[in-house]
Amino acid sequence: MAYQLGENFKLFTLNSNPELAQEIADELGCQLGQSSIKHFSDGEIQIHIEESVRGAEVYLIQSTSQPGSEHVMELLIMIDALKRASAETINVVIPYYGYARQDRKASSREPITAKLVANMLEKAGATHIITMDLHAPQIQGFFNMPVDQLLGGKILEKHFFDKGLADAIVVAPDNGGLGRARKLASHLDAPIGFIDKRRMHPGEPEVVNIVGDIKGKNVIIIVDIIDTATTISLAANVLVENGAKAVYACCTHAVLSGQAVQRIEESAITELVVTNTIRLPEEKKIPKITVLSVAPLLAEAIEHVHNEKPVSPLFE
Amino acid sequence: MAYQLGENFKLFTLNSNPELAQEIADELGCQLGQSSIKHFSDGEIQIHIEESVRGAEVYLIQSTSQPGSEHVMELLIMIDALKRASAETINVVIPYYGYARQDRKASSREPITAKLVANMLEKAGATHIITMDLHAPQIQGFFNMPVDQLLGGKILEKHFFDKGLADAIVVAPDNGGLGRARKLASHLDAPIGFIDKRRMHPGEPEVVNIVGDIKGKNVIIIVDIIDTATTISLAANVLVENGAKAVYACCTHAVLSGQAVQRIEESAITELVVTNTIRLPEEKKIPKITVLSVAPLLAEAIEHVHNEKPVSPLFE
Amino acid sequence: MAYQLGENFKLFTLNSNPELAQEIADELGCQLGQSSIKHFSDGEIQIHIEESVRGAEVYLIQSTSQPGSEHVMELLIMIDALKRASAETINVVIPYYGYARQDRKASSREPITAKLVANMLEKAGATHIITMDLHAPQIQGFFNMPVDQLLGGKILEKHFFDKGLADAIVVAPDNGGLGRARKLASHLDAPIGFIDKRRMHPGEPEVVNIVGDIKGKNVIIIVDIIDTATTISLAANVLVENGAKAVYACCTHAVLSGQAVQRIEESAITELVVTNTIRLPEEKKIPKITVLSVAPLLAEAIEHVHNEKPVSPLFE
Amino acid sequence: MAYQLGENFKLFTLNSNPELAQEIADELGCQLGQSSIKHFSDGEIQIHIEESVRGAEVYLIQSTSQPGSEHVMELLIMIDALKRASAETINVVIPYYGYARQDRKASSREPITAKLVANMLEKAGATHIITMDLHAPQIQGFFNMPVDQLLGGKILEKHFFDKGLADAIVVAPDNGGLGRARKLASHLDAPIGFIDKRRMHPGEPEVVNIVGDIKGKNVIIIVDIIDTATTISLAANVLVENGAKAVYACCTHAVLSGQAVQRIEESAITELVVTNTIRLPEEKKIPKITVLSVAPLLAEAIEHVHNEKPVSPLFE
Amino acid sequence: MAYQLGENFKLFTLNSNPELAQEIADELGCQLGQSSIKHFSDGEIQIHIEESVRGAEVYLIQSTSQPGSEHVMELLIMIDALKRASAETINVVIPYYGYARQDRKASSREPITAKLVANMLEKAGATHIITMDLHAPQIQGFFNMPVDQLLGGKILEKHFFDKGLADAIVVAPDNGGLGRARKLASHLDAPIGFIDKRRMHPGEPEVVNIVGDIKGKNVIIIVDIIDTATTISLAANVLVENGAKAVYACCTHAVLSGQAVQRIEESAITELVVTNTIRLPEEKKIPKITVLSVAPLLAEAIEHVHNEKPVSPLFE
Amino acid sequence: MAYQLGENFKLFTLNSNPELAQEIADELGCQLGQSSIKHFSDGEIQIHIEESVRGAEVYLIQSTSQPGSEHVMELLIMIDALKRASAETINVVIPYYGYARQDRKASSREPITAKLVANMLEKAGATHIITMDLHAPQIQGFFNMPVDQLLGGKILEKHFFDKGLADAIVVAPDNGGLGRARKLASHLDAPIGFIDKRRMHPGEPEVVNIVGDIKGKNVIIIVDIIDTATTISLAANVLVENGAKAVYACCTHAVLSGQAVQRIEESAITELVVTNTIRLPEEKKIPKITVLSVAPLLAEAIEHVHNEKPVSPLFE
Repeated sequence: MAYQLGENFKLFTLNSNPELAQEIADELGCQLGQSSIKHFSDGEIQIHIEESVRGAEVYLIQSTSQPGSEHVMELLIMIDALKRASAETINVVIPYYGYARQDRKASSREPITAKLVANMLEKAGATHIITMDLHAPQIQGFFNMPVDQLLGGKILEKHFFDKGLADAIVVAPDNGGLGRARKLASHLDAPIGFIDKRRMHPGEPEVVNIVGDIKGKNVIIIVDIIDTATTISLAANVLVENGAKAVYACCTHAVLSGQAVQRIEESAITELVVTNTIRLPEEKKIPKITVLSVAPLLAEAIEHVHNEKPVSPLFE
Repeated sequence: MAYQLGENFKLFTLNSNPELAQEIADELGCQLGQSSIKHFSDGEIQIHIEESVRGAEVYLIQSTSQPGSEHVMELLIMIDALKRASAETINVVIPYYGYARQDRKASSREPITAKLVANMLEKAGATHIITMDLHAPQIQGFFNMPVDQLLGGKILEKHFFDKGLADAIVVAPDNGGLGRARKLASHLDAPIGFIDKRRMHPGEPEVVNIVGDIKGKNVIIIVDIIDTATTISLAANVLVENGAKAVYACCTHAVLSGQAVQRIEESAITELVVTNTIRLPEEKKIPKITVLSVAPLLAEAIEHVHNEKPVSPLFE
Repeated sequence: MAYQLGENFKLFTLNSNPELAQEIADELGCQLGQSSIKHFSDGEIQIHIEESVRGAEVYLIQSTSQPGSEHVMELLIMIDALKRASAETINVVIPYYGYARQDRKASSREPITAKLVANMLEKAGATHIITMDLHAPQIQGFFNMPVDQLLGGKILEKHFFDKGLADAIVVAPDNGGLGRARKLASHLDAPIGFIDKRRMHPGEPEVVNIVGDIKGKNVIIIVDIIDTATTISLAANVLVENGAKAVYACCTHAVLSGQAVQRIEESAITELVVTNTIRLPEEKKIPKITVLSVAPLLAEAIEHVHNEKPVSPLFE
Repeated sequence: MAYQLGENFKLFTLNSNPELAQEIADELGCQLGQSSIKHFSDGEIQIHIEESVRGAEVYLIQSTSQPGSEHVMELLIMIDALKRASAETINVVIPYYGYARQDRKASSREPITAKLVANMLEKAGATHIITMDLHAPQIQGFFNMPVDQLLGGKILEKHFFDKGLADAIVVAPDNGGLGRARKLASHLDAPIGFIDKRRMHPGEPEVVNIVGDIKGKNVIIIVDIIDTATTISLAANVLVENGAKAVYACCTHAVLSGQAVQRIEESAITELVVTNTIRLPEEKKIPKITVLSVAPLLAEAIEHVHNEKPVSPLFE
Repeated sequence: MAYQLGENFKLFTLNSNPELAQEIADELGCQLGQSSIKHFSDGEIQIHIEESVRGAEVYLIQSTSQPGSEHVMELLIMIDALKRASAETINVVIPYYGYARQDRKASSREPITAKLVANMLEKAGATHIITMDLHAPQIQGFFNMPVDQLLGGKILEKHFFDKGLADAIVVAPDNGGLGRARKLASHLDAPIGFIDKRRMHPGEPEVVNIVGDIKGKNVIIIVDIIDTATTISLAANVLVENGAKAVYACCTHAVLSGQAVQRIEESAITELVVTNTIRLPEEKKIPKITVLSVAPLLAEAIEHVHNEKPVSPLFE
Repeated sequence: MAYQLGENFKLFTLNSNPELAQEIADELGCQLGQSSIKHFSDGEIQIHIEESVRGAEVYLIQSTSQPGSEHVMELLIMIDALKRASAETINVVIPYYGYARQDRKASSREPITAKLVANMLEKAGATHIITMDLHAPQIQGFFNMPVDQLLGGKILEKHFFDKGLADAIVVAPDNGGLGRARKLASHLDAPIGFIDKRRMHPGEPEVVNIVGDIKGKNVIIIVDIIDTATTISLAANVLVENGAKAVYACCTHAVLSGQAVQRIEESAITELVVTNTIRLPEEKKIPKITVLSVAPLLAEAIEHVHNEKPVSPLFE
C-alpha cells in the first residue's frame, strides 16, 4: 500500500515506544522527524526539534506508560516546543493512555488524574488525539478536541478466530468488563461468564464464584489492561481448578508491572496475547506471551486523519 | 435536627421538581428563594429573581429530566441571572443529571452531550455540583469544579433489607451494571447473576440467557435509570418463566418515558422501587411503584457543603 | 448562477426550518448533508452525522425559534458532534437569533440570555456566525468570533418599492425602532412618524398619541420582530381610526406566537409582509400575510464566506 | 449618613477624575488608597501601589474619558498590579465608559471596541463593574461578570422637576434615544417629539423636520452623551427657529470635545445640565453649563455592593 | 530578490512607524493594505479596514513605542477589527516591544505590564508575534503562541566590523547586559568590561568603577534600549576621563526620550549607532546618530513565516 | 513566636522535601495535613487526602527538584485532588522552582518549560504561588495569579557578614549574575568582579579571564543555582591559581546533580554555603557544605499571606 502524505506531514516519536513509532513510520513509508529528547544532569527533560515544523501537520507518538510522569512530561514539553515552533496542528498519538484508571473519584478527596492529563494536553497545545482502548470510553469526553479511539479488539479477535478453538467460552475476570467479553464472544460465537468475588463477612477471606458454565471448555479471559496480573492469574487458576480445559488470556495494554510476568509464567494460563501499545522489554518476552502489532492499524488511522478520510471504517 | 445555615444561604428551585425542592427546604428548615420562571408567548424562558442574592451562597435545585432541553436551558439562564446578580457561589443541585447516557461516542460522529452540558454549566457560572448516581462515575471528570456525587443505593438497600426477603439473588438485566448488583448483593448477603443477550446469526432473533442460579429465588433487579422499562420488563418476564419465585426491581432515576408505566404494570415485576430524583406525575403513580425520597440525603449534603463539613460520611 | 463550492464544503440543517435550508441548498446547487436528528423516548435529542465531516468547512442552518430551548440545544449538540468529528470550521447560520430580546438587564436580577446563548455557541465550538437582523446590533459584540449580519430590510424595501404606494409614510409602532423606519422611508422617499404611548397617572389607561402626519396616507409600519402582534395590531387600528388610508406592516422575523395570526386577521392591517427566517406553519399562512424568501441572500452570503469574498456588498 | 465599610475595604483612584473620587471618598467617610501613577520619561505608565491590598475588596475609580487610550491602559495596568498584589476582589467603578459608541460593526471591517475593552478588563482581572448610563444597555452583556449600571436620569429629572418649567416637551435630537426622552417626559408629565433629518436626494443638503408640537413650548433635549455638541446645537437652533420658547439640554456624560463648549455658548441653548462622570476642566466651565454631582449616587452604590445589599433601590 | 507571497498575503501598518512599514513593503515587493486609523474628536481611535481580509494571512506592523498607550490600543483595536473581519491569521510584527522593561515585580505591588500587554494581544486575537531584541528573552514565555524574536545584533556587529576599529573593547554600561557585550566582543575578537556603580554608604554619592582595561582603547558600549541616555552618556564620559581613546555606543531600540538627544550630543560619545525599530523623528536626527534599517531583516522574516520556511537561519 | 492561623488553615507536603515541610510546620506551630502519596505497581502516582479540606485555605509545599517530572506530576495531581475536594484556595509553596532555566527559547524549536509548568499549575487549580529566587525574575510574569518571591540572599549575606571576612571581593562566575554579586557586595561593602570566558577562534580551547582585582582577596562566588558544579569549581580553581587567598561559594538552590559533590570536594573551594530549598540527601552532606534553613522565612511568609499582612517586609 502506498500512502500519499504530502510535504507538510511530519511524524515524531518520544521515548516511550520508539520501536512502535519506527514500525508505524515503515508502514507509512516515511521517516521519523529529527529531534533530540535528552536529560540534563539533574534529570530535567531537554527537548530540541532538529528540523523545521513551521506550518506542518505533526503526528507525535507517545504512550504514557511507565515511568508515567516522565512520559507525560516529555509529551507536554514536546507539544510546547512544537506549538512555539509554529506547527499547524499537533496530533498526539497515545497508543496507551496511562493514568486512565484514575478516571473518577473512587473515594472522597481523590484526584481524577485521567482528566488532569487531558486538561494538560489541551492547555499545552495538542489539537487532536488518536488513542486505543481507553479504560473507560467516557475519557473521550475529558477532551474538548476530537479524539479518535481505535480498538485492539479486532486484532485479538482475529488471533483467536484463526486459532479455531473448539468449545470456547469468554470470561470476564471480575464484575466489570462484561461488555468487552460479550463482543469477543459474539465474534467467536461463544457464550460468556464472569468471576464473582465477595466477602461473606468482614474479616473472612473472599469467596470466588464462577458464574457461567466453564467445565471442559477452552476459556478466554479478556481485559483491556493487565497490570500486576494478580487478578488474571488467580482467575486462570480458579478456572482450571473448576474444570476448564485450558485458559487463554488477552488484553490490549500489557502494563505487566512488578511481578506480573512471573505470575503469568507460574499461572495456569496457556497463552497470553497482548499488543505492543506498550513497549515490552526483552526480559519480559517469555514464550507464553504473544505480542501482536498495532502499527498497521495506527498507520492507517494516521493516514486517514491526515488525508481527511473517515476513520470509522477502521473500527466499525 | 436543627440545621444552622446562616444569613447568606439561599435555596432556589426551578421547574423540574418543585415538590422535591420544597421537601429539601422543609428538611433544612428554610424557605425557598423567591423567583419567577415563566415563559414568554413564544415559549422563551423568562426568569426573574425576586430577592437580592448579592454575596449569597446559592443552592439551586434542578433535575435535567424530561423535557430535558427546557430544563437545561432554565438552569443555564438561572445561573446567568445569579452570576450577574453577584451571587458569591452557585451550587447546582442536580438530583438527576439528564443526557448522562450520551457520555461517549458510541459510534462515529456522535456528540458527547453529557460533556457538552457540563461545559455549558461551567461556562454559565456554576461553581459546584451536587448530584446523584451519575450514569457513569467518569462524568465527574467532565467538570473542572468540585462534584459531590451522592448515591441512592443506600436508600434502596435499606428498603430491601427491611423487607427481609429470603432466598434473594441480585441480577443485572444486561452485561453492564454488575458492579451495582454486586454492591446491593453484598449488603443483602446474596449471590449475583446477569442476563446475557446475543444474536447467534445476523437477522435471527436475540437469544436471552440467564447466567446465575435464579430458580425459586426472589430476584432483585437493580439499575441506575429506568427509561422505557423495556429491558427490565423483558428481564422480569424471562426470570419468572425460568423459575424465579418473584421479581423485584429498583433504580434511582425513574425516567419512565413513553409506555414505561404500562409495561411495568403488565410485566412480571412484583414491585418497582424508585426515588424521587425525577418528579413522578400523579398519572404514573401506580400501586406497583414505591417512591422513596432523597430529600433527607440531599438536605444533609447541602448543609454539609454549606457549613464546610465533609460530605464523605454521607456515602461511605 | 453557478456557485463553485469545492469538495470540503458541507451544508447541514437541523429541525427548525428545513424548508429554508433546502431552498438555500437549491440556490447553492448542493445537497444537504446527511444527518439524523431524533429524540429518545424521554425527549433527549439524539444526533448522528451520517457522512464524514473530517476537515470540512461546515455550514449549519438553524433558527433558534420556537420551541427555543429545543432548537438551541439541537444546535449546541450538533456543534459538539461536528467538533468531535473533526470538522475544520463550523459556520453557524442563524436566520433568526432567538432570545435576542433578552439582551440586557431590563431590571435587577435578570439574565442576559442573548449573551448566554452566544457564550454557549462559542464554548461548544462554533467558529463563525451568519445571522440576520439582530434585535440589537450590539449582539454582534456578544461574540468573540466573526459575525456576519445580513439585513432583511432590502427585501422588504423592494416589495414596497415595487408596489408603488402613493402618499406613503413609515411609522414606528413605539418609541424604539425609529432608525429602521428612517431607513425604509429614505428608500421610499417618505416621511416618518411614531406612536407614543404613555400613562398620564398610575392606574389610568395608556394614552396613545400619533406623532407625525398620517391623515389620508398609506402607512407602513416596520419592526424587526412581530411576536404576539399586539402592539402592531393596536397601532394599525389607531392609525386607521385617526385617518390613515391603509396600513401595511412588515418585519423580518415573524414569530407570530399565541393569538398573533388571529389578531392580525382581525386588525386593520391590509397586508403583513414577512420573511421566512422563521418557518411559518401552514395553519398560519393566511392571505393577509406575504412571505418573502431570504434563501437567495443567505445562499449568496454562504458562498461569499466560503470562497473568502467580502460579504459587505450584500448589505451595503 | 455613617457608612460602615470594614477593614478590608479600599478605595483607589486613577488619573481621569480624581476630584470625583475624592468626593466619593468624602461621601463614604474614607481615605483614598495610597498609590503612585506616574509616567516614565518615554511616557510609559508607571504604577506603584503604596499600601498593602492583600485580601482587600478594592474599589477603583476611573472614567475611560479623553485621553481614552491612556485612561484605559492606566486602568488595565492598575488592575494587573492589584491582582498580583493579592487583592481579593477588584471592583472597577467606571462613571463614564468610553469607547461605548463603538458597540457594533456599523459598517464592514470595523472593530467593536466597547467589547474589546470589556474583554481586556476581564482578562486583566476585574471582578465587578459599576458604571453609569452605558451608551447601549446591551454593553452589560459584553461582560461575563456582574455589571451594576446606575442611571443619571434621576439626577437630571430632579433638576428639571425642581425648576418647574411650564409647557414642557421633551425632544430627542435624532431618531434614536426616544426611550430616554419618554422616560424624562413621563416624570415631568410632558409630551415628546424628535427631530428627523433626511437627505431627499444624494448630494442635496439634509432636510431637518421636527416631529411633534414644540411651538411656544419649553423644550428639553435629552441625550446620554454630548461629544462635539454639533447635533444638539443644531437641534436647539432649529427648535427656536420653529417657535420653541426656550431650549434646555441635558446629558449624563459631558465629553465636550473640540469646539463643543464654544458651539453650546453660541447656540440657542438656554442651559445645559450635565453630571461630573467626566471631569470638566476649568476652561470649559461656562455659566450656561450646570454640573450635577454623581458622587452621592456612586458612593451609595459602592456601599451597597460592599455590604452586600441590593443596588436595585438606587435605580428603580 | 523576488518574493512569492500569494494572494492571501496582506501587510498592514498602524501609526507608530509607517516609514519602516513602507520599507518592508518595498523589500517584499507588495503594497501596504488600505486602512484608515483616525481619531474621533474626543481622541478615541477609529479604525476602518478598507479592503477585504476574509481568509487572509495578515501581517500587521506596529511598534509599541511612545506614545505607548496609544500605540498599544491602536494595535488591539486593529486586531479586533481583523478578527471580526474573518482574517485567517493575525501575525503581529512588533519591531520594538514597549513596556518590556516592566517584565517583573521589581518591588511589591507593581504590575508586570509586559505580561499584561502579551495577554491583551492574545485575548484580542493575535495568532503569532514577530519581534526584535526583547528586553529580556523570557518575555517570549509571556505568550502562549509562537514568538519569533529577531536580533539586531548582527546589523550592529556588521557596522563595527566594517569600520575596522583597532584596539576595541566592548563595555556594558552597568552590571546587566554583559551577555550582549560578550556576543559583540566575540564577533569583533575583543575583550569585555563593565562599569560598576555602588554607593559606599547610604546618602553618599555613587562611586563609579570601571572593571576591565580600557586605557587607550576604542570602547564600544552596547545596550538593547537607550531611553533617557543618562546612563550611557555618563558611562562614555567616565570612560574618556579614564583614558579611553574613543567611545562608540550602539543599541537596537532608540527610545531617546526627553533630553536624550541633547545628552548624547553633549557627551563624549563619538558615534551612536541605532536601528529604526522606533521611528526617529527628523528633529532627533543629529550627525552623531547613525540609523541602520531593520527592514530587510523583517521582510525576510515575514516571507519565511508566510511561506513556512524556518526563520532560524535569520538569527543563527 | 506564636502564630495565629485559624481553623481553615491547612498545610500539606508532598514527597520532594518533607523535612523542610516539617520544619515549616514546627515554625508555624501546626501539624502537617494527613495525606497519602504512594505509587501503584506500575509507578503511577496515587494520592489520597485523608482529612477534609472543604473550604480550607491550603498551603502545599513541594520543590520541583530531581526527579523533576515526578515532583511536577505529584504537585499537579495533588492540586487536582484539592480542587475537587472543595479547597477554598490552593497556595503552592515551591521553594525551588525546577525547570526554571528553560525560561526562553535559547535556540530555535525549543520549549519554554518554565512557562509550560506555570500554565499547568494554573490550569490544575493553583490560586497563589510562593517561591524563592526564581532563576529569572521574569518567571513571575509566566503566571496570571499572585506570585510572592522570597529571596535567599539575606540568609546567605548574614552568614558571610557574621563570618567577618576581611579583604572580600564578590565574583560572578560568568557574565550573567553580576546583579546578584552587586547586591551581596553592597551588603558586605566589597568590590565585585566576574570571570570572562571566550573562545578566540573556533576549535581552540576557551580562554578564561578574570575581570576585577582578586589578588590576595577572600573571594565569594555567588550564584542562584549550583547544578553540576562544573562552572563554580573551575572558577574557584582559576581564582586560586591567580592569587586569591581563599574562595567561598554560595547559592540558594543546591541541585548538586551527578558528580557535583565530588567536584566541590576536589575543588579549591573552602566552603560552600547553600539553603535547604532542595533536600540534600545524607550522602551529599560533606563538611565543606554548610546548609542554612529557609524554613523560618517560608513560615513567616505563609503566615503573612494567610493573615493578609504584607509580605514585602520579608524581602525589602
